Amino acid sequence: MNDNKKRSESEMDTAQLVTVSFPEEGPEIAVAKGTLVLDAAIAAGLFINSVCGGIGRCGKCKIIAKGKFESDRTELLTSMEHNRGITLACQTRILGDTEVQIPASSKVGIHQILTKCELVELDRPEPPIWKYHLTLAEPTLENNISDLSRVKQALLEAMADPTLNVDDILAPMSVLRSLPKLCREHGWDITVTLAKFDNYAELINVEAGDTTDKKFGVCVDIGTTTIVMELIDLNTGKSLGCSSNYNKQKICGEDVLSRILYSEEHGTEKLRKLVIENINYLISELIKDWNSQDHEIKKDEISYIVLAGNTTMTHLFLGLDPTHIRRDPYIPTVSQVPFLNAHELKIDINPQAFVYCLPSRSSWVGGDITADILASNLQCQDELSLLIDVGTNGEVVLGNKDWMVTCSCSAGPAFEGGEVMFGMNASFGAIEKIQLTDDLDVKYKTIGNTPPRGFCGSGLIDVLSELFTHKVIDRNGKFKSIAGPRLKSVDDEKVFVIAFAAETGFEHKKDIYITETDIKNALRTKAAIFAACNLLLKTVGFKFDDLKNIYIAGGFGNYLDTEKSIMLGLLPDVSREKFKFIGNGSLAGSYLTLLSEEKRAEAEKIYKKMTYIELSVNTAFYHEFISAIFLPHTDLSLFPSVKEIL
Amino acid sequence: MNDNKKRSESEMDTAQLVTVSFPEEGPEIAVAKGTLVLDAAIAAGLFINSVCGGIGRCGKCKIIAKGKFESDRTELLTSMEHNRGITLACQTRILGDTEVQIPASSKVGIHQILTKCELVELDRPEPPIWKYHLTLAEPTLENNISDLSRVKQALLEAMADPTLNVDDILAPMSVLRSLPKLCREHGWDITVTLAKFDNYAELINVEAGDTTDKKFGVCVDIGTTTIVMELIDLNTGKSLGCSSNYNKQKICGEDVLSRILYSEEHGTEKLRKLVIENINYLISELIKDWNSQDHEIKKDEISYIVLAGNTTMTHLFLGLDPTHIRRDPYIPTVSQVPFLNAHELKIDINPQAFVYCLPSRSSWVGGDITADILASNLQCQDELSLLIDVGTNGEVVLGNKDWMVTCSCSAGPAFEGGEVMFGMNASFGAIEKIQLTDDLDVKYKTIGNTPPRGFCGSGLIDVLSELFTHKVIDRNGKFKSIAGPRLKSVDDEKVFVIAFAAETGFEHKKDIYITETDIKNALRTKAAIFAACNLLLKTVGFKFDDLKNIYIAGGFGNYLDTEKSIMLGLLPDVSREKFKFIGNGSLAGSYLTLLSEEKRAEAEKIYKKMTYIELSVNTAFYHEFISAIFLPHTDLSLFPSVKEIL
Repeated sequence: MNDNKKRSESEMDTAQLVTVSFPEEGPEIAVAKGTLVLDAAIAAGLFINSVCGGIGRCGKCKIIAKGKFESDRTELLTSMEHNRGITLACQTRILGDTEVQIPASSKVGIHQILTKCELVELDRPEPPIWKYHLTLAEPTLENNISDLSRVKQALLEAMADPTLNVDDILAPMSVLRSLPKLCREHGWDITVTLAKFDNYAELINVEAGDTTDKKFGVCVDIGTTTIVMELIDLNTGKSLGCSSNYNKQKICGEDVLSRILYSEEHGTEKLRKLVIENINYLISELIKDWNSQDHEIKKDEISYIVLAGNTTMTHLFLGLDPTHIRRDPYIPTVSQVPFLNAHELKIDINPQAFVYCLPSRSSWVGGDITADILASNLQCQDELSLLIDVGTNGEVVLGNKDWMVTCSCSAGPAFEGGEVMFGMNASFGAIEKIQLTDDLDVKYKTIGNTPPRGFCGSGLIDVLSELFTHKVIDRNGKFKSIAGPRLKSVDDEKVFVIAFAAETGFEHKKDIYITETDIKNALRTKAAIFAACNLLLKTVGFKFDDLKNIYIAGGFGNYLDTEKSIMLGLLPDVSREKFKFIGNGSLAGSYLTLLSEEKRAEAEKIYKKMTYIELSVNTAFYHEFISAIFLPHTDLSLFPSVKEIL
Repeated sequence: MNDNKKRSESEMDTAQLVTVSFPEEGPEIAVAKGTLVLDAAIAAGLFINSVCGGIGRCGKCKIIAKGKFESDRTELLTSMEHNRGITLACQTRILGDTEVQIPASSKVGIHQILTKCELVELDRPEPPIWKYHLTLAEPTLENNISDLSRVKQALLEAMADPTLNVDDILAPMSVLRSLPKLCREHGWDITVTLAKFDNYAELINVEAGDTTDKKFGVCVDIGTTTIVMELIDLNTGKSLGCSSNYNKQKICGEDVLSRILYSEEHGTEKLRKLVIENINYLISELIKDWNSQDHEIKKDEISYIVLAGNTTMTHLFLGLDPTHIRRDPYIPTVSQVPFLNAHELKIDINPQAFVYCLPSRSSWVGGDITADILASNLQCQDELSLLIDVGTNGEVVLGNKDWMVTCSCSAGPAFEGGEVMFGMNASFGAIEKIQLTDDLDVKYKTIGNTPPRGFCGSGLIDVLSELFTHKVIDRNGKFKSIAGPRLKSVDDEKVFVIAFAAETGFEHKKDIYITETDIKNALRTKAAIFAACNLLLKTVGFKFDDLKNIYIAGGFGNYLDTEKSIMLGLLPDVSREKFKFIGNGSLAGSYLTLLSEEKRAEAEKIYKKMTYIELSVNTAFYHEFISAIFLPHTDLSLFPSVKEIL
């Protein structure tokens, strides 16, 4: 972020307000003079692409502004773009009332965000939150113990839990301050909420009358890209709604590394605030939605929140410096986050609500992977299973109920729209299915059936697999010397056109194609994932055939075509029924943890039991990677069904 | 507080500032226009008498103001006082720059405030605060656990405490946020502070290098009238200084009842803030004093605070509503205050410092009495002892290591300067010693040897005992029909002059005397205390002679003349070596608790073990009281040595 931006932020308190409007999207808001368009858009609830984190390097946040603003000329824009009034949102400061137009290519689309799956069934909810309706004996001169002692005594009788001692129950000031009035105004007829983690028990709420039917929690997947949350009735385990949004931290960078760099330069506070805003917004939306269906939930009745995220997301959520996560020897501040109350993190639910973050194994195998494992139930099985979470990073876990090994590989963002010229995330206009005909013509389908603007991860796998099976590319991923209307040369590089200019959704029409560099990047990504899987197996002396299950987790995993992925050598060539797609394992695992102390104990065991293998300095991994960079693999015998097709 | 006062407070934020100065005392401060002189004086660190709590009823806060102010005429001032420009500080609003003169009669004097005694010796300090100097192994790719795990592992090795599990150690966000930088900037050479109460262990601080020699705590006596505090080196148990001040809550009323009434009318928040201000001020003074002697203590190094106060003071300190303490059946919100961190109460030491309040037995037998018991060591003895804490309320404890009974009697404020025309607290100008000659002339000594302005508790006991032994008053406390220059009649009431007008320190000279009503009030006070002692003994079937020790605690107790007190029937007529004066037992008990987990455990046992006897509805007590209202008692056989003199 440049100096201009810094200056504009520090001036915000005293500066005059100006109006910025986004006529196409609707919002019109007041911001301090000098505010960047990128920040104004976020404030208005709109998302503009910002891969570099708003430092003027990626050129993805193009906008057209009308009104009073200033913006430096940048090499990222062509003369024509300059002439057409296009500027970068991260480099444009609003000086007076301004109208902003966000071209479709700069918008972060709304795509289907994965919610939880149900591989694991809970018999009945057993969260660490207990509500007891107590009818207390009115005090007399003979029975004149303090209000708190009266409540605790009745509570202990109601609980009949011999492990709990009256002196061990803590009570926060907020409860003590409301207790005397509440008891007396409601005839000593109250409901208390007790939260109990291991040895730690706290009386977190006191309410009038019988409110035992009102016991709620939320489980959250804090993803680098998206945040997904469910509101859960802790009495029944039933989901009352799911809500999701992009992670607002995207304005500070798209991926984990750029967030860490942002934090190093500007501190963690802004990142912390953004994700807390995200979470508080989603909670209020969930409550609003549920209450609009003739219910009545209050924020105060949410007394437990469980979150799963990768190690960096967890650190930023807590406001912890993530610097050392990215630096050799890759050390997080915490793996197992200590017990916290919601008010300490400014989460807007019951201030004393318990907050639990799923523990992470290392800087690069986070609480989201612990949650994936819980969701897969791998940790309870006798048989050997493999779990793959494919995202910008690929994390792989191998093991069973007795042992687990794990590693993380920088798979690269190819399957998430990065490092690929027309790559994009799975939003409207993304080509998600591609078929080649024998005469090398293309049939495709876009998300939302709108004119195409690029292709998402599943589209990329489709096109690679089709190009390979139709022998347009060789096993190195290079275009063969064949001709056709879709085989062109752009900037001295061979490309294959997927959609011609006329078909596309672009304002200024141009072909959508895939280049040899794109293919190379995609192969590196798939090679990293396969190599990591193979390395873990070899490390412990097993083969793919020894696996009972291969669990695929993560947003991308859910849309993966098994056959085509095997064709590319992304997934191993084993019998197809071994593959189990667990969807958003991070959310599913946090859901299980929320509702079951047994599952939470398992999560703690997983974190302690797993052996982490660091790949960054591992030469065996490098060899595996090099072997896997071919289509489908250097060693064709590993892919018998592909060999047969070829 | 009247409407004017309320209005002026609500206007404070936006009102313009005016200057108020106190030329005699020095301070000059800016306050919001409309501020009451009483509040301005407090803000300037000056204390003006305010028995009624600033509601314009007691007329004790007379001042002379010059400048721009407004004040309503009140019947509490004579026409002459009005003409001389005298107004009441609680009824005078400052409208522009104003000079205020506080006559000596309106000042709360500075008298000797009791500090701790040493009846109990600790072998060595064993507070629940531990400091460990740790030299951590630098992380590597092979040893890549999180910073927190690294610290905890090293800590557990250093502690070698098998009862402590690594998962049980909590760490607050403040520590986690500073941990990574601190470790790396100081070569992994750190000192951690662990606070451990029962099952609860928290890593409350992390510092660079070896700071194990810097471990401090404070113990506090929160009295209704005064607050006394000591700064303690937790390594050695040595006191580094004692500091004390009037309880700022005095502006809201002198005694416990008027504070509760204030809280009912205006809420507890102001009272809470005042005592916290008191405590924070005393802490900063103690640190300043100690550091001026070439030491260097930081507030952050104070990691434990123990407080003892009566139940109302403890409630107000915590911001808890004390309403039900004064209402039948007299129920406090808490007796045993749950664990708290300093930041929750806004105490300005290490934010995570542990706060412990000594538990109270009932609404009228508070943590100060638990502290008294600890200080006396009564709870460890085989033999039977009696403990008397004399203040506005008298609290009495009878027992030994196996059992204890306690009660509280509204002794009345006679010995603290209340309900006695020329009664005053033990400050400069108070007559503290009085002797009568055979021809009924008077010799006296004042505190500070300044001209007299009244008499304090010990002076009252002296004059009563002298009047009785010189047969000026009879066993009913009535003046006999004898004549003399000091025996006068004022407003149709017989009085005895102690100091003639010319000798006094008053601006407008007048005699200092004692009236029959004064004597009646004093006899009621002494009768309540003696009756309470006798009742407890009878309840459990013992007599005064069965007692091994009679401990006298409390500010007044320390200046008590045993012989004269027995003469009046305030103390029992037993062999004199049984009387042990423990001084400020509240401070001494909190000191012991601060330094010893064993003593803290004893305090918890005392609170649970003591049987409380409610006197307000006890007819046996009423009979004891009626019998004790004579000099020395209806039953002279209880006072053989007095009988002999008579």
